[in-house]
Amino acid sequence: MKGFTLWFTGLPSSGKSALADDLAPKLRDMGIKVERLDGDIVRKTLTKDLGFSKEDRRTNLERVTFVATLLARNDVAVLAAFVSPYNDIRHWIREQHEDGQFVLVFVNTPVETCIERDPRGNYKKALAGEIKSFTGIDDPFEDPDDADIVIETVGRSIEETNDEILAKLKELGYIE
Amino acid sequence: MKGFTLWFTGLPSSGKSALADDLAPKLRDMGIKVERLDGDIVRKTLTKDLGFSKEDRRTNLERVTFVATLLARNDVAVLAAFVSPYNDIRHWIREQHEDGQFVLVFVNTPVETCIERDPRGNYKKALAGEIKSFTGIDDPFEDPDDADIVIETVGRSIEETNDEILAKLKELGYIE
Repeated sequence: MKGFTLWFTGLPSSGKSALADDLAPKLRDMGIKVERLDGDIVRKTLTKDLGFSKEDRRTNLERVTFVATLLARNDVAVLAAFVSPYNDIRHWIREQHEDGQFVLVFVNTPVETCIERDPRGNYKKALAGEIKSFTGIDDPFEDPDDADIVIETVGRSIEETNDEILAKLKELGYIE
Repeated sequence: MKGFTLWFTGLPSSGKSALADDLAPKLRDMGIKVERLDGDIVRKTLTKDLGFSKEDRRTNLERVTFVATLLARNDVAVLAAFVSPYNDIRHWIREQHEDGQFVLVFVNTPVETCIERDPRGNYKKALAGEIKSFTGIDDPFEDPDDADIVIETVGRSIEETNDEILAKLKELGYIE
């Protein structure tokens, strides 16, 4: 099996990490080596010096990308979940990967649904003005112009959504 | 093949990177996946924000270790060459790795020889007081108290030294 980075982009609370968490053991059961990368993981280690300014968020993604490219080219399936809201940084991340080793998944959940879910209460704080530059509220999320997979999550189970992702990965030749 | 990190420690100009550079293709020829990590590589990417203060050098090693552990546990042979002069940081690096996935190579070249080699002229500058806290001159290098492999380089070719490292890796069961 060749490695690849499956990069989940989408609004906060769109379901990126939940999907990646559920997908990881499924890929492992298929004999695939898997590593999970997301904010909760890297901000304790690799990027613990960084905050949430625009510049720091970009640096966070740059360091994660360095790690993801090394793993992907060594036959690991990297499941990375990051808001990564702009096309320019997502294009840059793709370019850092070897050809065909980057698969962009757009978790296309409407902001209204994300606000309803809001497990950490961050939308509430952003709407109250307590958090500034929050993606989806007062900072834009650009819909990807180069998504390899686009998925809807409203009214669907994680299971159902991941079945769609797995089918697409098969179709694209990443898994058998 | 199980992965491991082969960590070269030693004075500046002791020969760490030269050995690792020569060893990488030899391991690849054996069908082993290899990644090289050293200052010249990571300071352009992963740690480009860091300088050479004691704190920054520690942070540099922490980030490299994060990457090395991920690669090693995914069956990659990581060849890492860093001065890494203190026992406490080397112990910490070993502890971050899964059991048996860290192999410490002490490149035991006397400081007099390193001063003679000095390909970048850094010892010259340190001796002239133009670089401060330079390992081997005005900052200590602690000989490892837990080296798995100790090699001498004086009067020996890189080829000869790496043959010794390869023999030792076989003996320890890391390669066949």
